Amino acid sequence: MLTLYFAPHTCALASLIALEESGLPFKTKKLNFAETEQRSPEYLEINPKGRVPALVTDRGVLTETPAILAFIAQVAPTAQLAPLDPFEFARMQAFNNYICSTVHVNHAHGRRGSRWADDPAAHEAMKAKVPQTMTECFEIIDEKMLEGPWVMGEYYSVADPYLFVMTGWLRSDGVDPARFRKATAHYAQMMERPAVQRALELEQA
Amino acid sequence: MLTLYFAPHTCALASLIALEESGLPFKTKKLNFAETEQRSPEYLEINPKGRVPALVTDRGVLTETPAILAFIAQVAPTAQLAPLDPFEFARMQAFNNYICSTVHVNHAHGRRGSRWADDPAAHEAMKAKVPQTMTECFEIIDEKMLEGPWVMGEYYSVADPYLFVMTGWLRSDGVDPARFRKATAHYAQMMERPAVQRALELEQA
Repeated sequence: MLTLYFAPHTCALASLIALEESGLPFKTKKLNFAETEQRSPEYLEINPKGRVPALVTDRGVLTETPAILAFIAQVAPTAQLAPLDPFEFARMQAFNNYICSTVHVNHAHGRRGSRWADDPAAHEAMKAKVPQTMTECFEIIDEKMLEGPWVMGEYYSVADPYLFVMTGWLRSDGVDPARFRKATAHYAQMMERPAVQRALELEQA
Repeated sequence: MLTLYFAPHTCALASLIALEESGLPFKTKKLNFAETEQRSPEYLEINPKGRVPALVTDRGVLTETPAILAFIAQVAPTAQLAPLDPFEFARMQAFNNYICSTVHVNHAHGRRGSRWADDPAAHEAMKAKVPQTMTECFEIIDEKMLEGPWVMGEYYSVADPYLFVMTGWLRSDGVDPARFRKATAHYAQMMERPAVQRALELEQA
């Protein structure tokens, strides 16, 4: 059995959606970020990095969204959530790695500046630049990366829930998502998927 | 034929080492960061993100280190540079994703603060915290992640060149690598590998 540790309004939603799409049986455990439960000794035993998501499997714990997403796709092959061809798989992973190393990191500067500087004035300076950096990321995504209708073209994959989460954050980043025609259409299509609706209900439950 | 676009003293060294380990035929193109060649119109055609590495294949361009590393491992299966089992593969990817989304990002705040804030005082504040954030990362790596002798235990994988690059940056981050017993031993072992020596020569050529 798989157990996903998550918190609402985090990138863990991408893994939650992927699990819903996969057809695999799974359980969830919701952490309370307001009470910094992700830093509790119990949770640090599961994930010493003190972040979500973490996926507990019969063989051990997996962390980091792109790794969890690819794992879900690989252990649920009938759901066809990732290409099997190494080049296409690498293209999907490149998209997901861009999100984790650049897009999510840019977003995090709006509220987690204390990760990278102690000076409150620096946190304000970081926050001020978020609309610009997120706009630059989504310009590249919309113009060069998102093939449409899905990230990988006609092939729905675990890259799609990950992009969905990022697009859903744009408004709170001070960016109007409507500027990005393909990402906005992608978001609307995602909202129509039953797996996405179930994941959003689970997140709020 | 594969062509790796790289620049010296960047994380592209990990992909260069992986190519040397793979036995695959490949070419390299060195970009001159001092002349911001990574932002030239020619290179932006190859990688619109304006970063290295980029791996040009017969089927298209791949970017993002963890995706490139896994691709090299998958197209050179006889070199056995990545586990085939999905759980072990995901553990390796989780390690590489931690590097790209957290370790490399922390390092980048020492010299690329302008990515995340415009205020020079904020850049100084970011720079000041790099020794702390890199130390925290390597404490987790040394105590919880690096099994030894290689990242994945007895199994040498593409996670090893990536860790090697990060360990090699510690001194410039204001951190004494000797604090981290396992990472230091790992670095020394890597330096003995002929593929690593060839890659370092190629980087400096």
